[in-house]
Amino acid sequence: MRDVAVLGIGQTKFGELWDRSFREIGIESGLQALVDARLSSADLGGLFLGNMASGSLIGQEHIAPLILDYAGLAGRHLPSVRIEGGGASGALALHQGYLAVASGLYDYVVVGGAEKLTDVPDTTAGEIANSSADHEWEVVFGATLPALWALVARRHMHLFGTSREELAAVPVHAHEMGSRNPNAHYRNRVRLEQVLGAGPVAEPLGVLDCAPFSDGAAAVVLGPLEEARRHTDTPIRIAASQVACDTLALQHRKEPTTLESTVVAARHAFDRARRTPKDVQVAEIHDAYSISALVSLEDLGFVPKGRAGAEFASGRFGLGGSPTVNSSGGLKAQGRPFGAVGVAQVVELVRQLRGEAQDRQVSGATLGLAQDVGGTGATTVVHLLERVN
Amino acid sequence: MRDVAVLGIGQTKFGELWDRSFREIGIESGLQALVDARLSSADLGGLFLGNMASGSLIGQEHIAPLILDYAGLAGRHLPSVRIEGGGASGALALHQGYLAVASGLYDYVVVGGAEKLTDVPDTTAGEIANSSADHEWEVVFGATLPALWALVARRHMHLFGTSREELAAVPVHAHEMGSRNPNAHYRNRVRLEQVLGAGPVAEPLGVLDCAPFSDGAAAVVLGPLEEARRHTDTPIRIAASQVACDTLALQHRKEPTTLESTVVAARHAFDRARRTPKDVQVAEIHDAYSISALVSLEDLGFVPKGRAGAEFASGRFGLGGSPTVNSSGGLKAQGRPFGAVGVAQVVELVRQLRGEAQDRQVSGATLGLAQDVGGTGATTVVHLLERVN
Repeated sequence: MRDVAVLGIGQTKFGELWDRSFREIGIESGLQALVDARLSSADLGGLFLGNMASGSLIGQEHIAPLILDYAGLAGRHLPSVRIEGGGASGALALHQGYLAVASGLYDYVVVGGAEKLTDVPDTTAGEIANSSADHEWEVVFGATLPALWALVARRHMHLFGTSREELAAVPVHAHEMGSRNPNAHYRNRVRLEQVLGAGPVAEPLGVLDCAPFSDGAAAVVLGPLEEARRHTDTPIRIAASQVACDTLALQHRKEPTTLESTVVAARHAFDRARRTPKDVQVAEIHDAYSISALVSLEDLGFVPKGRAGAEFASGRFGLGGSPTVNSSGGLKAQGRPFGAVGVAQVVELVRQLRGEAQDRQVSGATLGLAQDVGGTGATTVVHLLERVN
Repeated sequence: MRDVAVLGIGQTKFGELWDRSFREIGIESGLQALVDARLSSADLGGLFLGNMASGSLIGQEHIAPLILDYAGLAGRHLPSVRIEGGGASGALALHQGYLAVASGLYDYVVVGGAEKLTDVPDTTAGEIANSSADHEWEVVFGATLPALWALVARRHMHLFGTSREELAAVPVHAHEMGSRNPNAHYRNRVRLEQVLGAGPVAEPLGVLDCAPFSDGAAAVVLGPLEEARRHTDTPIRIAASQVACDTLALQHRKEPTTLESTVVAARHAFDRARRTPKDVQVAEIHDAYSISALVSLEDLGFVPKGRAGAEFASGRFGLGGSPTVNSSGGLKAQGRPFGAVGVAQVVELVRQLRGEAQDRQVSGATLGLAQDVGGTGATTVVHLLERVN
């Protein structure tokens, strides 16, 4: 199996991009990544695209060749494949791109993630978010994605004494980081009292505990590590790329406060890379809801089960923390264009590992972790990225 | 790169399966394939699922973990990934499963394709078919998928003198083969006069020139060739798996009667396998519309451009022909559950190469080709399968 490296990164601003089409943002990020990788499109072998819901949103399935076309590459007849796994679509696309290069059948590929969620009413975007939960066993009975995560929050509070204030510390941190990220959807800081006083979505989660629906795209160029020095001064090796799944419906899990898919994907990833959670300096994790960040930190192995609320509130995961969590602002503040999230997480890790994260830089970061989650945890993808010296 | 073999196959009946759910048919085919591969689910490493439109059809995205769950495998937390590329979704999933095993990260995987199209009105299924064409440049102006293929047909007739009767020979052959396939949606024979006299869909294409919307699922088990003898007496090696893409919109192509994606994917596949079209005894090709079969035969290299109509009508591609085309009955008669088609094509090739195709068996078949197409040819996937002695 060949070693695979990230050679280039690209990202659009996340937010309400009403003046720009899905096609435009998809190619902008891809071309940025190609330029960053000093790669001519003549050397490109294929495109793997993460996207959750273009079928429902713009009546367009089969969008991978469309993005290729708009990037001016249709004439080269490259392979172009769309991957979908709810909110984890982006990281799943990265997994497929990784396999493509690792196998040796492909040399250089672009992995992109793109979604356009603000051209439709929020209710439509909400229905699409819900379509990553179990339609027959959850959604038809009125359960929404935030309501399902609220159940997890209630049970976490019940089992472990996690407080409402500890939950609220998650978005406060996210907005602090978002204020330092020029690509972020939200760049305003929020205070704990604002989070606690915001209108309820599904109690205990309020408006500021829930990530927004965003437009945005992100892309990376992957290639064989052995060729990486031709393309970048700081090759970033993919030390592990692991996927694990679980029941789609939350009620079918043994214990709703444990994301078994995250536990398993993280264990496999750390085993494969021969590293432990202690070795990670920067982590981009799933904070679509305040509670999802807390259980993720536990299930990734950064804190014991039940302790994430207290540790988060103590500031352990702030800038320079162990690890620094969501320096990008996370899904909460950087934004949440479903299929782009997992790729954007890796873009942020690469910035950190290259030392290009400016006033949110974690000094000396050499190992980063990205965790991308679909639904209430039916899919988790974990990537470990490592700076090669 | 490891050699990859097909170790097991499974398929449901194709047709109007109103008494069975998407979940049921998905797992039935997968479990059949596992049993056929003499594989315990404990040895399974992951699932790659081709599906085009569960989001639009049943409000359910994120279906790969759902199928895993209903197969009783959620407790093992295996990776499970959905791939979408219009009508080529199934073969794209096979490509991803192939890369997974070839890379060495996965040993044994199930590749499945499933679609449930007859629970919604035909108009809805038609809209979904159209969503594989270009929404902004074709569909909003009223173009449907059959109308776009009808343009290709008209131009083929104009440029090469292809006749209406030659087009009609395609479904006559498909139904003859379907009559021999117990899984086929349509098992009735049709006469040339019936095809010519059927009501128009988009002239020159009539109702009998267009494949139906079907429910159905198909699955294969892939594993390393070196382990294949433990699982089957007749390992079938994947000699090539190649994807190529083109513009989504037909009008953006240089010449609409040439599927460049098919030309390129086939050339790469034959190069990689060091074989030529003459070496192929059995081929499953894209006969969703009579014209798509003709241009496919040309672009795969089986006949010179412009000659497919005459050669098809002469019977060259019948049972025992060179090659035998669509012994399964093809999309026209076996049926067209979008995401399942590409996997079902490979299931049929494996039956042929094993010598298990009963009264549609091509004697001594050792090399088979499958061509799966999305939209009007924006995606083509070509697989070459070879019997290992």
